[in-house]
Amino acid sequence: MPVNLTPPAAAQLLPVAGVSLGVTEAGIKRENRKDLLVMQLCAGARVAGVFTQNRFCAAPVIVAREHLAQADGIRALVINTGNANAGTGEQGMQDARATCAALAGLLDCKATGILPFSTGVIMEPLPVAKIAAGLPGAVANMRADNWYDAAQAIMTTDIVAKAVSRQVHIGGVQITITGIAKGSGMIHPNMATMLGYIATDAAIAQPLLQQMVGEAANCSFNCITVDGDTSTNDALMLIATGQTALPEIRDAAGAGFATLQAAVTEVAVYLAQAIVRDGEGATKFITVQVEGGRNEAECKQIGYAIARSPLVKTAFFASDPNLGRILAAIGYAGVDDLDVAALRLYLDEVLVAENGGRAASYREEDGQRVMQQSDITIRVVLNRGAAKATLWTCDFSYDYVKINASYRS
Amino acid sequence: MPVNLTPPAAAQLLPVAGVSLGVTEAGIKRENRKDLLVMQLCAGARVAGVFTQNRFCAAPVIVAREHLAQADGIRALVINTGNANAGTGEQGMQDARATCAALAGLLDCKATGILPFSTGVIMEPLPVAKIAAGLPGAVANMRADNWYDAAQAIMTTDIVAKAVSRQVHIGGVQITITGIAKGSGMIHPNMATMLGYIATDAAIAQPLLQQMVGEAANCSFNCITVDGDTSTNDALMLIATGQTALPEIRDAAGAGFATLQAAVTEVAVYLAQAIVRDGEGATKFITVQVEGGRNEAECKQIGYAIARSPLVKTAFFASDPNLGRILAAIGYAGVDDLDVAALRLYLDEVLVAENGGRAASYREEDGQRVMQQSDITIRVVLNRGAAKATLWTCDFSYDYVKINASYRS
Repeated sequence: MPVNLTPPAAAQLLPVAGVSLGVTEAGIKRENRKDLLVMQLCAGARVAGVFTQNRFCAAPVIVAREHLAQADGIRALVINTGNANAGTGEQGMQDARATCAALAGLLDCKATGILPFSTGVIMEPLPVAKIAAGLPGAVANMRADNWYDAAQAIMTTDIVAKAVSRQVHIGGVQITITGIAKGSGMIHPNMATMLGYIATDAAIAQPLLQQMVGEAANCSFNCITVDGDTSTNDALMLIATGQTALPEIRDAAGAGFATLQAAVTEVAVYLAQAIVRDGEGATKFITVQVEGGRNEAECKQIGYAIARSPLVKTAFFASDPNLGRILAAIGYAGVDDLDVAALRLYLDEVLVAENGGRAASYREEDGQRVMQQSDITIRVVLNRGAAKATLWTCDFSYDYVKINASYRS
Repeated sequence: MPVNLTPPAAAQLLPVAGVSLGVTEAGIKRENRKDLLVMQLCAGARVAGVFTQNRFCAAPVIVAREHLAQADGIRALVINTGNANAGTGEQGMQDARATCAALAGLLDCKATGILPFSTGVIMEPLPVAKIAAGLPGAVANMRADNWYDAAQAIMTTDIVAKAVSRQVHIGGVQITITGIAKGSGMIHPNMATMLGYIATDAAIAQPLLQQMVGEAANCSFNCITVDGDTSTNDALMLIATGQTALPEIRDAAGAGFATLQAAVTEVAVYLAQAIVRDGEGATKFITVQVEGGRNEAECKQIGYAIARSPLVKTAFFASDPNLGRILAAIGYAGVDDLDVAALRLYLDEVLVAENGGRAASYREEDGQRVMQQSDITIRVVLNRGAAKATLWTCDFSYDYVKINASYRS
């Protein structure tokens, strides 16, 4: 069950002027399930994104990158679940392009104005005829206040739909940011994660939009892991429709950029954490905070060693303060000159280890008490510099095995 | 249950002249369990070893390295289970030294002539008084034909004892090699694995002995993973007693060295594979063979990405040919210029993927048939060079979670 994560109320999700969303049941993998989403954008909307670094990236990732690189402007996004169109070779590329062409025909725009996204099983042919047959229904369903249904339509093994809105004021103008994401397994992002879409009605110059999405991803989706598997289809898109009175943001040093960046990052962090809270089989949400490092890279390296360790994750599932497993993970993280006698390990506020071993003040019942919680922070203080990094992960349960042993059935 | 692994018959384990083994029940973690092993070596025996690269390496690893570096000669090894004496700081160092001193007193040798090894739970104080009290019983039990009991005495979560003997002839002299190992979880060796001890009655110069154990580890223990967690206590020791008529081997280019190296490596490979076959919760033994790479490092990198992936391992547990997960793992292995369209993926003899997607000849029932087996080979042909690497791993089952969620109880 998701850890301290409740579905958003549809009414709390704010429309973003210039974005209409329509969903339908196209029967891609199974019947009676919303599995196709179309997001139409107003003319002049700008889109920037970051994509998976997986070499086996999916056909839609390749096509979306191509279309983004063209100057024409993006008019719609189309997202299907139930099939990832990854590991599908040349046929997969044709299928992704055919999906774009079918939607372009309905929306009267160029096929290069469409960005395609897919998520689901890998190495099976995309049922492009079903998608094409479903598109008119999705287009007919398009509304500005449809974010909740959109979040539902992109779910796969997710239990809870993930969506959130924020509003900020810049130069006296109210700016809205709404985002949705999906993801639960195959979560170990590298530059992006599963699928995330964040839209704002602000106007922002294209290079700054790209900078903003990269920064938001680095502080959110690039800080989570469920199972250490980097998806073939990861993508995070940031849309700026420019439908408010606020002039275009063109200066990264200005207050407007910083305010919008902070709000976009806040939305991205909420969505990324929601993915972990809804991680496959998760019963605990674990924050891994590594500080006092020489640089951020070594903090992340140590943090990910802890966050990926099956031994650490099963101990948390069992609420067993078998915390030596955390020391072992720190030790094999690959920071070769690490002085293990200099570091301190905390579980929430409880000092667990120092001087290379268990802290004199540590009592098993204190560790046990923290382990019973559903939200826990592992804090490692390296005492060798000023850098830090924070990651989020979940525990490893029977249900993770169950979900992934039966995923295709 | 262990995968196609039966315990060795005690009678098949050949004594190695110059080595006596004694075991006892010292009650270190629980009663009525063999948990302490003493291996006494004849004067003049040579010992070489490789140890974990984990920065949080255990106190006995540090002490064993120190004692090996001294010129005095090693007269005995002492191995306890039930407690790893890792993450125990300065007290752990004192406890390891006290264990050596206690045994040295009984064997009338220097404390620096003893190598200590520990395995079990991390970050709990070593019960050194129990060990000291148990040592006289272990010493009284010492016999040359005691390898089977020795293999049993070093087990922790192992289900099957791991031991094997080989004999070769060099220059007309019969040479015996016998080895034991333990390990089942926290298996992702880096230069060595859990605990392994191999002894031969041949004589071999010290630098060649070190070369031989490194080479054997590289082809065996450094090619396995169960859960991706590198232990704090990994050690592989090679003992040469020099108790046959064969003159000391001093030339790495000679036929004697090559013959002995091959036999030692064969013993090491058997033991390493036995650890995977007895991997925690394992139901399948999986060979991952990556060939056609530019160098061995990239072959191992891709092989380990596959072998560590929880998604791949749960699919094998389910006998579900959800083989796109293997492509995803290849894609995120970190070989940045990998051309995914050039590689081929096989499951045993079945061609699964080529040209970046599913092979035209692939039929689900062929993949399904292979997935039902208990021994399966994943073969990746990269088509970009002549290097190759072979790794061994197991699947990921409910029982892995169960074993590791209840390890301390």
